[in-house]
Amino acid sequence: MSEVAVSTRIRLARNLKQYPFVSRLSKEDRKKVVEEVREALSHSDIRLNFIDMATLTKVQKLSLAERHIISPEFVEAGEGSALLVSDDNTVAVMLNEEDHIRLQVIKEGLALKEAYETASFLDDVLSEHLELAFTERLGYLTQCPTNLGTAMRASVMLHLPALEESGALNRISTNLSKLGLIMRGLYGEGSKSYGAFAQLSNQVSLGISEQAAIENLDNVTKQLISQEIRARDKILSDIAVEDKISRSLGILKSAYVIDHSEAMRLLSNVRLGAAAKKLSTLSTESIDKLIADVQPASILLKYGEQLSPRERDIKRAELLRERLN
Amino acid sequence: MSEVAVSTRIRLARNLKQYPFVSRLSKEDRKKVVEEVREALSHSDIRLNFIDMATLTKVQKLSLAERHIISPEFVEAGEGSALLVSDDNTVAVMLNEEDHIRLQVIKEGLALKEAYETASFLDDVLSEHLELAFTERLGYLTQCPTNLGTAMRASVMLHLPALEESGALNRISTNLSKLGLIMRGLYGEGSKSYGAFAQLSNQVSLGISEQAAIENLDNVTKQLISQEIRARDKILSDIAVEDKISRSLGILKSAYVIDHSEAMRLLSNVRLGAAAKKLSTLSTESIDKLIADVQPASILLKYGEQLSPRERDIKRAELLRERLN
Repeated sequence: MSEVAVSTRIRLARNLKQYPFVSRLSKEDRKKVVEEVREALSHSDIRLNFIDMATLTKVQKLSLAERHIISPEFVEAGEGSALLVSDDNTVAVMLNEEDHIRLQVIKEGLALKEAYETASFLDDVLSEHLELAFTERLGYLTQCPTNLGTAMRASVMLHLPALEESGALNRISTNLSKLGLIMRGLYGEGSKSYGAFAQLSNQVSLGISEQAAIENLDNVTKQLISQEIRARDKILSDIAVEDKISRSLGILKSAYVIDHSEAMRLLSNVRLGAAAKKLSTLSTESIDKLIADVQPASILLKYGEQLSPRERDIKRAELLRERLN
Repeated sequence: MSEVAVSTRIRLARNLKQYPFVSRLSKEDRKKVVEEVREALSHSDIRLNFIDMATLTKVQKLSLAERHIISPEFVEAGEGSALLVSDDNTVAVMLNEEDHIRLQVIKEGLALKEAYETASFLDDVLSEHLELAFTERLGYLTQCPTNLGTAMRASVMLHLPALEESGALNRISTNLSKLGLIMRGLYGEGSKSYGAFAQLSNQVSLGISEQAAIENLDNVTKQLISQEIRARDKILSDIAVEDKISRSLGILKSAYVIDHSEAMRLLSNVRLGAAAKKLSTLSTESIDKLIADVQPASILLKYGEQLSPRERDIKRAELLRERLN
């Protein structure tokens, strides 16, 4: 199933009771929040590295956002904001993003329960050592009222090229809101859906338990995966699709200049081929790794932050040729 | 220079004095013309195979036209028309095309004098054994008055991707008529210029000697070749051009369906790269061979005359993958 579900993410929003929300938080209090949470999480057995956001360049922050370790909004964060992140990047805690604490757990494939377990464990550690803003009536209090309640966003990154090809994806996306779910592009709200990648998340957090929200998302995701697999079976026998997959790989192996959007579109096609075992040498895992590595800031981080957009497109092509040939 | 000049062709039109022109020729006289010319040419030391056009399928005739062995018009020829052709296809004589005799000599690269020498030799053989329609005032008489005089068409097939890329080709093409020359597409009058291939020919045959016409064409061709080479030097340092060449080869190596027009465009790009020694494994000669082999009728001839256009595009892709990988 990981051929369709790329990754699963649970994000919890928490705030400390004795401090105002981030937008009204003083400089000193921001520091105190960071220190208190850092101290609290040091009691868990998951080792987290501390990164003061003020010490990162814009490109380093953009690269973290591209790899979904921080939110796109957190790229603007500087003094008074921090990131706690595990060595394998599966656990990341943003401090003083929109809320005091935004804790996220990422797992490969569809693994909502596993991700939720880890998140819950860390949430328990937080509760044990900190006084969190919580009321019986509203649940966890958050700066933005839309997150009140469970203050949990569960999401699954899906690769749905066959449903996109058949035109079904738009219809499905529209119907999801009736199920309390929302479909977004690769980089969250308002972002484009590059290369048939889409994020499916729970939208409602008030009046529903975490377990119910996760179960709902899990069920719908499994249905979507089945639909995608059936749609793939249908289109993969078409030589036009085989042609598209093979040409996409041919172009990625031979281009000398390639922009982000084209690379994503072609890698999405190749990922479909890899999932169908049509490209003997390539796995979906290796494609997913490539997708992360060809993102704009990741290229800059690897080859030099001063590159012009054109030079970046040349380096992206170089990277793709090296890795695919 | 053969990187720019693909091939040279001399075509002579001749008619037998004692017969009416082809359009007014009776069935029996057509046969006699065929027999007389065949007999006359048997006196040369160039061995020519005899093909009765009525014995060929449409696809076989189309394939001959694609390889420039016969004219596109001669595809319609049947009973009473014939072809004499050498084993290496460099000498071909159409009998009862527009004129009784259309004799052509093809050489690789720019070789106008050599081609003319061979054509003249065969012309001498014809004159020796046949009475040709000729007057001192008008020269050789032909059915169409535009061919009167030398009744010679000399032409050079050129590959001009850099002049096309720079937009100069259109301007040049317009100016050539002032020099008594004309530029056409790959398949003669009114045909499209697939993939930057163009035929440059003499237009005037009256009031000019064969030698003068050939010298004129030779000079202009050499100028065009120099212009093309200078234009190539300029564009080949551009990574966008390198990208285009490399992607073209990548697509040709990986496509599963490819139509004629796209294959020609991509092969033209690859030929530019091969000429610039940017593609170590490929020579312009091997590309020229491929260009001949991917033409529609040649594909049908190789894989089956009953193929649908779609099946033909699939076989074309198969052939390209086999030969380029």
